Amino acid sequence: WEGEFFPGIPKIKYEGPSSKSPLAFKWYNGEEEILGKKMKDWMRFSVAFWHTFRGTGGDPFGAPTKMWPWEDGTNSVAMAKRRMRANFEFIDKLGVELWCFHDRDIAPDGATLEESNANLDEVVALAKELQGKKIHPLWGTSQLFMHPRYMHGGATSSELGVYAYAAAQVKKAMEVTHYLGGENYVFWGGREGYQTLLNTDMERELNHMARFLEAAVAYKKKIGFNGEFKLNIECNHATLSGHSCHHELETARINGLLGNIDANTGDPQIGWDTDQFLTDIGEATMVMLCVVRNGGLAPGGFNFDAKLRRESTDVEDLFIAHISGMDTLARGLRNVAKLIEDGSLAELVRKRYQSFDTELGALIEAGKADFEQLEKKAMEWGEPKVPSAKQEWPSQIRTFTA
Amino acid sequence: WEGEFFPGIPKIKYEGPSSKSPLAFKWYNGEEEILGKKMKDWMRFSVAFWHTFRGTGGDPFGAPTKMWPWEDGTNSVAMAKRRMRANFEFIDKLGVELWCFHDRDIAPDGATLEESNANLDEVVALAKELQGKKIHPLWGTSQLFMHPRYMHGGATSSELGVYAYAAAQVKKAMEVTHYLGGENYVFWGGREGYQTLLNTDMERELNHMARFLEAAVAYKKKIGFNGEFKLNIECNHATLSGHSCHHELETARINGLLGNIDANTGDPQIGWDTDQFLTDIGEATMVMLCVVRNGGLAPGGFNFDAKLRRESTDVEDLFIAHISGMDTLARGLRNVAKLIEDGSLAELVRKRYQSFDTELGALIEAGKADFEQLEKKAMEWGEPKVPSAKQEWPSQIRTFTA
Amino acid sequence: WEGEFFPGIPKIKYEGPSSKSPLAFKWYNGEEEILGKKMKDWMRFSVAFWHTFRGTGGDPFGAPTKMWPWEDGTNSVAMAKRRMRANFEFIDKLGVELWCFHDRDIAPDGATLEESNANLDEVVALAKELQGKKIHPLWGTSQLFMHPRYMHGGATSSELGVYAYAAAQVKKAMEVTHYLGGENYVFWGGREGYQTLLNTDMERELNHMARFLEAAVAYKKKIGFNGEFKLNIECNHATLSGHSCHHELETARINGLLGNIDANTGDPQIGWDTDQFLTDIGEATMVMLCVVRNGGLAPGGFNFDAKLRRESTDVEDLFIAHISGMDTLARGLRNVAKLIEDGSLAELVRKRYQSFDTELGALIEAGKADFEQLEKKAMEWGEPKVPSAKQEWPSQIRTFTA
Amino acid sequence: WEGEFFPGIPKIKYEGPSSKSPLAFKWYNGEEEILGKKMKDWMRFSVAFWHTFRGTGGDPFGAPTKMWPWEDGTNSVAMAKRRMRANFEFIDKLGVELWCFHDRDIAPDGATLEESNANLDEVVALAKELQGKKIHPLWGTSQLFMHPRYMHGGATSSELGVYAYAAAQVKKAMEVTHYLGGENYVFWGGREGYQTLLNTDMERELNHMARFLEAAVAYKKKIGFNGEFKLNIECNHATLSGHSCHHELETARINGLLGNIDANTGDPQIGWDTDQFLTDIGEATMVMLCVVRNGGLAPGGFNFDAKLRRESTDVEDLFIAHISGMDTLARGLRNVAKLIEDGSLAELVRKRYQSFDTELGALIEAGKADFEQLEKKAMEWGEPKVPSAKQEWPSQIRTFTA
Repeated sequence: WEGEFFPGIPKIKYEGPSSKSPLAFKWYNGEEEILGKKMKDWMRFSVAFWHTFRGTGGDPFGAPTKMWPWEDGTNSVAMAKRRMRANFEFIDKLGVELWCFHDRDIAPDGATLEESNANLDEVVALAKELQGKKIHPLWGTSQLFMHPRYMHGGATSSELGVYAYAAAQVKKAMEVTHYLGGENYVFWGGREGYQTLLNTDMERELNHMARFLEAAVAYKKKIGFNGEFKLNIECNHATLSGHSCHHELETARINGLLGNIDANTGDPQIGWDTDQFLTDIGEATMVMLCVVRNGGLAPGGFNFDAKLRRESTDVEDLFIAHISGMDTLARGLRNVAKLIEDGSLAELVRKRYQSFDTELGALIEAGKADFEQLEKKAMEWGEPKVPSAKQEWPSQIRTFTA
Repeated sequence: WEGEFFPGIPKIKYEGPSSKSPLAFKWYNGEEEILGKKMKDWMRFSVAFWHTFRGTGGDPFGAPTKMWPWEDGTNSVAMAKRRMRANFEFIDKLGVELWCFHDRDIAPDGATLEESNANLDEVVALAKELQGKKIHPLWGTSQLFMHPRYMHGGATSSELGVYAYAAAQVKKAMEVTHYLGGENYVFWGGREGYQTLLNTDMERELNHMARFLEAAVAYKKKIGFNGEFKLNIECNHATLSGHSCHHELETARINGLLGNIDANTGDPQIGWDTDQFLTDIGEATMVMLCVVRNGGLAPGGFNFDAKLRRESTDVEDLFIAHISGMDTLARGLRNVAKLIEDGSLAELVRKRYQSFDTELGALIEAGKADFEQLEKKAMEWGEPKVPSAKQEWPSQIRTFTA
Repeated sequence: WEGEFFPGIPKIKYEGPSSKSPLAFKWYNGEEEILGKKMKDWMRFSVAFWHTFRGTGGDPFGAPTKMWPWEDGTNSVAMAKRRMRANFEFIDKLGVELWCFHDRDIAPDGATLEESNANLDEVVALAKELQGKKIHPLWGTSQLFMHPRYMHGGATSSELGVYAYAAAQVKKAMEVTHYLGGENYVFWGGREGYQTLLNTDMERELNHMARFLEAAVAYKKKIGFNGEFKLNIECNHATLSGHSCHHELETARINGLLGNIDANTGDPQIGWDTDQFLTDIGEATMVMLCVVRNGGLAPGGFNFDAKLRRESTDVEDLFIAHISGMDTLARGLRNVAKLIEDGSLAELVRKRYQSFDTELGALIEAGKADFEQLEKKAMEWGEPKVPSAKQEWPSQIRTFTA
Repeated sequence: WEGEFFPGIPKIKYEGPSSKSPLAFKWYNGEEEILGKKMKDWMRFSVAFWHTFRGTGGDPFGAPTKMWPWEDGTNSVAMAKRRMRANFEFIDKLGVELWCFHDRDIAPDGATLEESNANLDEVVALAKELQGKKIHPLWGTSQLFMHPRYMHGGATSSELGVYAYAAAQVKKAMEVTHYLGGENYVFWGGREGYQTLLNTDMERELNHMARFLEAAVAYKKKIGFNGEFKLNIECNHATLSGHSCHHELETARINGLLGNIDANTGDPQIGWDTDQFLTDIGEATMVMLCVVRNGGLAPGGFNFDAKLRRESTDVEDLFIAHISGMDTLARGLRNVAKLIEDGSLAELVRKRYQSFDTELGALIEAGKADFEQLEKKAMEWGEPKVPSAKQEWPSQIRTFTA
């Protein structure tokens, strides 16, 4: 492969809301300061290697549709290296500084674990070189779900040999992530769990999983990989579980557990993870409100975990999709800035709970108000007044956001 | 009851997007012309009497929460008349010209059908007077679901007596709707259908329903009620059925069946009809795109069919909620104007199908291309080229809409 | 009210599977011993006062449909006492020994908390007498959701006065449950939580809830109410959350947290809790499998938390519905006995995990196998063999269960 | 490939409910007469070639898991022919007489349409020979979804060339189905429809689809393929659409449109089509009730459209799965026979509607009762009596079914 992978695509620039170019940012302006921080530092966007460079457009009823010009139809190490070059050209043109990967999406499985590891080392060495000083992984992870050996799970497989294999694979993936300067390591247990309880010993499986994670923590310390266990919230998984994305984020945040965000979205009418780029501005505003309250996400960030629709098959579609996802979240951040500047939302919430900003409120919150004391007060006060929650008003807030 | 029902509430005015008053329109400006028509003529908003004046805030686990000052706790005809006065003050202050009602939400059930009819006549006479020249019903309907007699349905009840009763009630409701200058009459079969097929003769029930509707058509003609059968699409029902609202609208439109829109929305995480005011600007844009393509909705229009959240209990919340619903749809209309003016969306679609703007395309569309002819062409042409659907780009369109 | 409440209804007897009487048990035979325990001791069925005696058949679109002959249309203390007599006749005829209640469903709210408490005391005194030696509550709880004061929650209300009121109400409910010999006390937070995060301080609310539960534990100890915190799993809530009932039960069981079961079921096509009696024999088998593995549920048990369909309006329907729920679970238990006796299911599971019944398996399970050790083994062993999970076979198991 | 494909598997026999062999029928006994017809004639089971012989166990996150010994890893015509031999051995051992196929699952795509057709002819000739006199297709269909050319649909593709290609493919598939003695031809439009309305002209697409179906009908007549358009109801699609399978069947039946049944089932907790074998006896009873009311399904029948779970990887699992599906429906049929013999269910339904078995009922059903007449009756009769629907009782019916 000679020359550029994306020859017609310029470096994507911020042109502002009036731009109609599909290959320009209208809302995301990385160096612009908002709420005391550069936009790029609030967002910490990372490109998901698997979707962007390994997504084929295949689905359970359809063959692959993406025919990227740089692909040669093989799963060779040479192809893996060429693909890695495309990745870094893409990252550079898009103007982000982070990327995410699974071990097996960047380098092919070998005939043996040793060979797989060697493949990985070869590709990782190139990635290290291509990263330069500016780019590094937001996180790495290992793919414990694609190969048929993992059909019963990795850490929860009924087979001891698979458990050991998974451990070896995670060990190696942690090593290379660390080597590449990755800030985090992610566990994605998509193949853990059961199909039917009738053939499953859930207690034993969960115990195995716990031991596996403990061993991972021990190994993390051994290789000098710092950081603590936090949650990687995926928006599309939130909605598939019957929760909103911002509910999951806020719940993680108030428990000090908000790590990364997989900023994708599903189709509200579809019951599986469609992994679309987030384009709902209302939801993006809620997401960014939580991120701002959290003081940002570092050392975590935003991973798109989103892919082109199956029928979008032009190379430029890769850029258009990422730009729409980035602009949507950027617009969310700009809305949050307006909400905070305006102050009326925060004031509404403050007032709602002000009856607890009292002496008895303080006792309750300190765990010092017992039932007898509270009963006495309840009898003394008679029927409590209960004001309107003014729920209609926050909905209106959208009217002064973009 | 003396004086105003909403003493602190002014007539709601358009103040534009920079306004922060909860009691002003930021996007809806009824007299403003957009795409060749006044906004109010595109929208034809109507107030839903049942939610706005009969909604209590009760739910399956909770007692009523709304304590409107004009309510006296009775279901008397006098109370019904007072409530009707509140309705018209509300309509006037909100600045709309249409309303919708069920027979039994505007006037109480009597001990007999005759007494119920007399109650209805008394309240309707007052409504007629209060309507004046400017206001009239978008539609009326009859409530065939609340009274226990309808527990097995109305037109599909297993009881002949109930079928006859339902017929009598619809007959009367059609008469009063017509008398009030109502433009449409709606059938809402929320209690038709079955609970278990084990005790149901679905074939017989559906036959009864068909006969019932035929009798209604015959009576409509007899009393001079013009108009044709079309569909009343409810957004929240669309999503509960697993469809998007704009899918239902577009399907109705292309079949010439788009009548009214119940412009509410559900909670995407909740499996029942929450009947919220629509506040999603993206969805509102899709809805208005369909309305504009339809050349408007008249003689149909928008009925909110939306209610205050249970915990919103101030009188002004009624206004805030309606304003947010109206502003959201108005913003959708403004977005549609931008999309149409820009033209690139229409151009994208035109180009996608241009291979049919050919001689063979015309034959196919005229039903004159048989399989043998098509097979011959397919063999002659070899493998067809299939371009990208450019799906990522329309998502970006949001970036230049409000 | 004079004489019997259910004059035509006999004491329900076990007649066996060939019986066609709707008023007889076909599978539930309380005194019969199965798997070393009497059926009644496995099941510990309790009647849910709220559904059985306070369910009206009302729904969001429909008025009450139940017109029980003993109801006089009031919510008086006298009526509450008459209803309590009906409850115990029902329990006696059905042949169970436990019941469950909320404070406010057995006795009416008064104008003040003191009056409410007095009402409760009066009704509870009667209940104590009617219980005799044989009957007692499986559990009591307090109704912190029906009254409008709780519209923003109880323990999570934004109003301090409501928090105190809720505390007083729980205090009293714990006292009367204890007085009646209740074995458990339940917290049902159906009104806790938020409607929109925009007006909510979730962190503060959750902290209040935690303090509330701590105060409840302290008071429990003070009054001598023994027992530990466990989970009350509701089948219909499981499925609304996207889980199967048996998943929830098994998860609770293996964590030592399985307390009570609300043995109801939803309609698989409906997105709210329909609270139907469980009639799915396959699911009942899975439920009972978990109960048997747990060694039974005591001091917990089965609460139906199920109600008549709105259109089932005969007094005898109350019995028919309970009988079908009891027979279904009884049939599940009989199936479990067959499965255990047959042994092939347990053997399938044992074999699946036998690779862990080894030296390395023991090390892993003891938390003593680190990643380096496991990697060494993985490399030594090469590609692991992964046998079929034989998932199709457990499905077949139904063929030899009833 | 030499010799048997399923060497350890005997011809599956009926051994009755006490059998514990996974490779025997416990409830399905093809030659046994039930309700006046042989079981095999009620059921008309057909094997789905695509799932049983082309299912790989791959999923969006996982590679294929099935390693059938007869597969050589190619998609050659020789492999297709070997696979066809396996198919007929399977059909023979399972003891059914029908099969279903897509054109492209039985023979590989060629480089051109002509080559694809030649491949198909070669495999079909072998199938014809292997069928003998006893076996023939329940139906054939064409695969218009797997190849990337169909990514925008077949009959609704935005590309004229694809429309023509699809027509050519359907033409050929109809020919070979007819040649093999297929009783039906099925249209499965899984790739028709849109991804976003923003790039779609739904009206134009639906018109194209209508023209396509008209051309298919014209060609059907030309080649002497008899039969009428009916519906192929798929149970798992019913539930994904928010309906029960038996609702769809009953709706089709009463409209005279019940054609075939894809007798699969989904996972109630999962939002995509898992295509499992039906193992729910309650649902199977409802399905068979509808089939019996329809007088059977011929010329349609039952197609399983179900596949092994991904983790079931033994050859015998193919048999175990089919046996469980067949036994479940057979048990449903046996239950229906009991219900019909008992008669109480039919009697319950008859009585529910008996108020229409009157003079006025007859007038209504004949479309001769107008609203004025009905109103007169309603006033004359006063408040109608509305009896209990006795919904709890049908649930109990399960207690005397297997």
